Amino acid sequence: MCRLYHFIAIIYSGLPCILVQILGIYVVARKGEDEMNKYMEQAIIEAEKGIKNRDGGPFGAVVVRDGKIIGRGHNMVVHTHDPTAHGEIVAIREASKAMESFDLSDCELFTTCEPCPMCYSAIHWSRIPVVYYGATKEDAAIIGFDDQLLSDILPRQEKLEKIKMVQLDREGCMEVFKKYEEDDERQLY
Amino acid sequence: MCRLYHFIAIIYSGLPCILVQILGIYVVARKGEDEMNKYMEQAIIEAEKGIKNRDGGPFGAVVVRDGKIIGRGHNMVVHTHDPTAHGEIVAIREASKAMESFDLSDCELFTTCEPCPMCYSAIHWSRIPVVYYGATKEDAAIIGFDDQLLSDILPRQEKLEKIKMVQLDREGCMEVFKKYEEDDERQLY
Repeated sequence: MCRLYHFIAIIYSGLPCILVQILGIYVVARKGEDEMNKYMEQAIIEAEKGIKNRDGGPFGAVVVRDGKIIGRGHNMVVHTHDPTAHGEIVAIREASKAMESFDLSDCELFTTCEPCPMCYSAIHWSRIPVVYYGATKEDAAIIGFDDQLLSDILPRQEKLEKIKMVQLDREGCMEVFKKYEEDDERQLY
Repeated sequence: MCRLYHFIAIIYSGLPCILVQILGIYVVARKGEDEMNKYMEQAIIEAEKGIKNRDGGPFGAVVVRDGKIIGRGHNMVVHTHDPTAHGEIVAIREASKAMESFDLSDCELFTTCEPCPMCYSAIHWSRIPVVYYGATKEDAAIIGFDDQLLSDILPRQEKLEKIKMVQLDREGCMEVFKKYEEDDERQLY
């Protein structure tokens, strides 16, 4: 009997510790979720919209000004037949329309994948100074979007570039690629 | 009297020669006019439309398929506030809409000025294999459109490029730049 009480006492004394541990795991798990940048999350939502509608490649982007999204877009090449309708360009067009200005120098761009030379140039012309991107062009090549030839023809001279390029949330953006690959009826181009 | 006849005879004998010379000059002059490529002429008309409407920079382009213009455009950056609305991109978007295809591999593009890296990339994505351009980027820089920084960041590796670049009618295209410079109320950007 004494042993039973002893056992219960041990369990009881350890319970707060166990509870704290469970709470700790929960907090860490939540923090992990919260750590995804909220604007990149929106860029991912855009990319997923594109996958669902089969509009084109699995790429999304948002343009942010003063903490507010003023332009968003996903790749629409298949849907609109427009070879220039990459996610970043669709988002920039929407943002410049909203601002009634071709000068977006007080904005930032969040894109699920490293911009191709066309989008990089469009960002340059829009004067956006900072770009946050998730997956790399090498990641995109694995799922069939190979920009390598164009990147070889127009190699980026990083020493000269004025646009600040910051990578974040690669893993979350890679999840989007996986979803795209799972769609057997996606139109490759 | 004899001398007078003599003089008239000389003039008369030389007349066919003079006539042939006048005709020759006329033919050469006409040929000079005709030598302007008819598609480049249309690209110039587009550029001039842009100058007249003050839509943006003095650049025009047309996309040609089977001898027919299927897309045309001029720089609309000022008018639409879209930093990506360069002449070539406007023309490509119109052509792909007309063809209901992002694949313009059976087309050619005529543009009044050497494409910037954004437009070059757009041409690459549209799969247009041949580009005819008039003025050079150095010519454009003289009238205030300096792409040099972007061209330095993304220098074209001509050995690798698949797009055939052909210069023609530079002088005609330079005339367009002159007209743009004469407009004191043009909006520089």
